Amino acid sequence: TSSAVRVHRLAVIRGDGIGPEVIDASLEVLAAAESVFGFRAELTEISAGARHYLATGELWTPALQAQLREHDAILFGAMGDPVVAPGILERGFILEMRRSFQQAVNLRPVKLYPGVTTPIDGLTPDRCDLVIVRENTEGAYVGRGSTVHAGTPHAVAVQESVNTRMGVERVVEFAFRLAERRGGTLTLCHKKNILVEAGTLWQSTVDDVSARFPTVPVDYVHVDALCFYLPTTPERFNVVVTDNLFGDIITDLGAAIQGGLGVAASANLNLDGSGPSMFEAIHGSAPDIAGRGWANPIGAVLSTAMCLAHLGETDAARAIEAAAVHVLAQLPATAGPGMGFSTAQLGREIAGLLTSGAP
Amino acid sequence: TSSAVRVHRLAVIRGDGIGPEVIDASLEVLAAAESVFGFRAELTEISAGARHYLATGELWTPALQAQLREHDAILFGAMGDPVVAPGILERGFILEMRRSFQQAVNLRPVKLYPGVTTPIDGLTPDRCDLVIVRENTEGAYVGRGSTVHAGTPHAVAVQESVNTRMGVERVVEFAFRLAERRGGTLTLCHKKNILVEAGTLWQSTVDDVSARFPTVPVDYVHVDALCFYLPTTPERFNVVVTDNLFGDIITDLGAAIQGGLGVAASANLNLDGSGPSMFEAIHGSAPDIAGRGWANPIGAVLSTAMCLAHLGETDAARAIEAAAVHVLAQLPATAGPGMGFSTAQLGREIAGLLTSGAP
Ligand SMILES: CC(C)[C@H](C(=O)O)[C@@H](O)C(=O)O
Ligand SMILES: CC(C)[C@H](C(=O)O)[C@@H](O)C(=O)O
Repeated sequence: TSSAVRVHRLAVIRGDGIGPEVIDASLEVLAAAESVFGFRAELTEISAGARHYLATGELWTPALQAQLREHDAILFGAMGDPVVAPGILERGFILEMRRSFQQAVNLRPVKLYPGVTTPIDGLTPDRCDLVIVRENTEGAYVGRGSTVHAGTPHAVAVQESVNTRMGVERVVEFAFRLAERRGGTLTLCHKKNILVEAGTLWQSTVDDVSARFPTVPVDYVHVDALCFYLPTTPERFNVVVTDNLFGDIITDLGAAIQGGLGVAASANLNLDGSGPSMFEAIHGSAPDIAGRGWANPIGAVLSTAMCLAHLGETDAARAIEAAAVHVLAQLPATAGPGMGFSTAQLGREIAGLLTSGAP
Repeated sequence: TSSAVRVHRLAVIRGDGIGPEVIDASLEVLAAAESVFGFRAELTEISAGARHYLATGELWTPALQAQLREHDAILFGAMGDPVVAPGILERGFILEMRRSFQQAVNLRPVKLYPGVTTPIDGLTPDRCDLVIVRENTEGAYVGRGSTVHAGTPHAVAVQESVNTRMGVERVVEFAFRLAERRGGTLTLCHKKNILVEAGTLWQSTVDDVSARFPTVPVDYVHVDALCFYLPTTPERFNVVVTDNLFGDIITDLGAAIQGGLGVAASANLNLDGSGPSMFEAIHGSAPDIAGRGWANPIGAVLSTAMCLAHLGETDAARAIEAAAVHVLAQLPATAGPGMGFSTAQLGREIAGLLTSGAP
């Protein structure tokens, strides 16, 4: 009977630049996963991003929010265009989405897959497998501050970073559960020797929550030191929990180490059921290579796998990751834009592996 | 006549851990430079740091400030000890020194020297030669903020980052002069798409000062993107100017790329003559290897060269850098703690090269 089919309502935001290309490849993989694993994805295409904004003047609207809320998750391509000033889409759409749907956790695995070229000399996959858990709704991203005497020699700009116990505790608890499942250390990354108010809140929250996870070892590393250690000894880390702004910074470094933005995936997770979670590759819209069919869709495909894992389709998620990893390992070491593969071809290959039941 | 001898009054703060060891080596190099280049360094040893604090309870005192002010520059080893809580020495001494002497600029070259092992695969010295100019007195380091409902589920921590046009302009102007001298691009590193108040002040100051340096190309890179580019394409950067906290983070990444904390040097520059500048290696007190004579003194020696350049002894500064680079290139690729060299030996070799007029 049809009631036996698991249905997931997914909103798809292709966005700009290479966003539509990598989403196309991901949807091909998703379709293969549906047929193999017996669930159904009901897709709603949503127009949003730089081109949509230029055409309509619309960013985040109440109607869009209501429409997205009807979905179980959001697959997100990328947003941005050189003609839209920095900050417009970021603050006007992305931060609004994170806030409206209380996507409290930004989850970013930093995993070096076999065969992927990393800039780090001699780094091997066994030494690079960590997850960065970034707080996603507070900190410097609250966008509070003021400037007095703006435009004069006496200008003073005050920028505030606001953290609440609620916001910190939910992400810290999530990170502890993840560290427990992974059997690894939880590392708090902050700058508590300088940022006393925020640092005290973060450290005391970690200390308190730690009591509920007696088997999880806890560590602390200053954010500057972490940027020294991450490229040299990533094996030092398993689960890293950190502030919104520090997380933004160190996850890009993580993406560099794991072989580039093309393979890095991420999830923006709602934890309380009040709205859908959102899944996206870490790369941006990359207008310089858009439209050529050269973009690496692996980050988007792995984000789709994270989405399915989140929706309970763990077998499908695992199979997609395995297939993507298999395809990645086959790519020539010199593969890059225009060199040896196309976006669509990679999507097809991964989909084909799923359908054929290998690897 | 003795009036022909240039005299520089240097305060020497050895501090803790490996601080005294690397300073010893630096002073041997300094003595050789004095005899070769015909200047005199009058040294005043100052006791300060973790051990001094534990013994006396003293951190930054008015008497110490008055004493240091009588000097032309400060050579600084390192401070810190596991038994002193994080933040005590940082805020109680280092930030006080930066503030009291208005050390407005924190200057950190990121230069890969020949023969030095970098974690970055295939990176060559010609591709890695940039300078990070970090604002050193403002931003999140002002230490302002408050917490309401501390210790309760309703705790809210507010941490402020404060930048003034004066503070930003002086460091931006310094960076433009440096970029002009180096014939390179000035890159502003910030997160202006999110931190609107601070970002607007930084960008508008760069725009304004840029008019006075029409030959210097200007670029802008978000701090997260910079952490992606720095390990992969450091050749993209020549002079980077940035906020205090971003500077703290990206300079540690820079140190990783240039082959470790052992070779990274820095200057905390006063620009208006109101107090001495301070010179230190980027590494900390490294209590785990202290007392063995294993520490790499090159960072401290190169900081001493920066000190001499600042005092007008440009020939001596250049000769020390050349000698240090020569010795670095001779070190076995596997050199590390306890492997093939001692701190004192390296100091002696560099001093010997200076005295013998080679390289
Ligand atoms: C696009 C922007 C708002 C965003 C951020 O700063 O969080 C991006 O850099 C990211 O890391 O997701
Ligand atoms: C010791 C500490 C105050 C300092 C800083 O945060 O500035 C250090 O990390 C540095 O980079 O000089």
